[in-house]
Amino acid sequence: MVDPDQSFDPTVLPAADPCPFCAIATTYPPYDPTAPPGPESSLLDPDKAAPASFVVLSTPTLLAFLDILPLSAGHLLLCPRRHAPKLTDVNVSEAAELGRYLRLLSKALVQTTGVNDWNVVQNNGAAAAQVVNHVHYHLIPRPEIRASGKLRESFTMFGRGVRSELDDDEGAALAAKLREAIRVVLDEESRKAKL
Amino acid sequence: MVDPDQSFDPTVLPAADPCPFCAIATTYPPYDPTAPPGPESSLLDPDKAAPASFVVLSTPTLLAFLDILPLSAGHLLLCPRRHAPKLTDVNVSEAAELGRYLRLLSKALVQTTGVNDWNVVQNNGAAAAQVVNHVHYHLIPRPEIRASGKLRESFTMFGRGVRSELDDDEGAALAAKLREAIRVVLDEESRKAKL
Repeated sequence: MVDPDQSFDPTVLPAADPCPFCAIATTYPPYDPTAPPGPESSLLDPDKAAPASFVVLSTPTLLAFLDILPLSAGHLLLCPRRHAPKLTDVNVSEAAELGRYLRLLSKALVQTTGVNDWNVVQNNGAAAAQVVNHVHYHLIPRPEIRASGKLRESFTMFGRGVRSELDDDEGAALAAKLREAIRVVLDEESRKAKL
Repeated sequence: MVDPDQSFDPTVLPAADPCPFCAIATTYPPYDPTAPPGPESSLLDPDKAAPASFVVLSTPTLLAFLDILPLSAGHLLLCPRRHAPKLTDVNVSEAAELGRYLRLLSKALVQTTGVNDWNVVQNNGAAAAQVVNHVHYHLIPRPEIRASGKLRESFTMFGRGVRSELDDDEGAALAAKLREAIRVVLDEESRKAKL
């Protein structure tokens, strides 16, 4: 007899040990985001990690990469390099750096995708639908036209929306575009700061 | 004949002019969060604003206050004092300060509500369900027990979940507790920094 509590539920992921985001942090060393490695650089080879990882930012403090089950094209994750389960577990400088890069990544994401609307979401704990126990922010472009009156259409978040696996070639191309967009945004900000 | 595009849709709010968050910013001047005004102080009288506003933080850069249509008890909003529509419109120091206070407010919220799980959500643009056109982060405690296997239960965000109006007396009491919790968190951090 099958115990229903023990039956397979495809919506529940197995406990991750070691932490998948720490694995990405270990695999991809920091680089200068104002001079990112080119698309062909082995430094950012997606296949150095399993599953393949598409890094768009890797600083001494933070990492950003494409979600491998995107809710929309460009769905990004931003996390501290150091392991911390929840937002309350990051330190003050990580918190500030996350805040700074949420703005910068948003600019790069809008420029790269051409989608002007997006959500920033950060889930803490199982009741809040946190799946990976390493604090991370989602940045999710929203290309949907809500002007069509489909306001009541369910658009669930937290891993229960319609997600499809990221295609490796598309992921690599998109990550390269995002790294370049981040470089351009940082360059523009640096010029403005000097004016 | 009624044009269906012109018919009343209760889910669409009228355009806010002037901006309701700018109105709160104008009404409540900054105070030192390490020494907040007491619950009886006229400085933070909720009725100085309409609708009544329950301020938990007011710095020269940022404001935080209770959502008047909370998804759960303690549902908070954090925004820059200065008007900016989207996260891409804030400046670098506002972005960093938002990042710092998301962490601090999370700590205060967990301590005050006793709820250990919560979401941080920030919506940009109509397609992302932004309603008030002044950039803001939501902090939403999640007391739900998902261990019961109700993973597929719809828990919509973005203003379409079950929201009820904030009770004024409860709001005032909760805001006072949150201001005190923020003071305690800042005090603890300041002591640690000196060690």
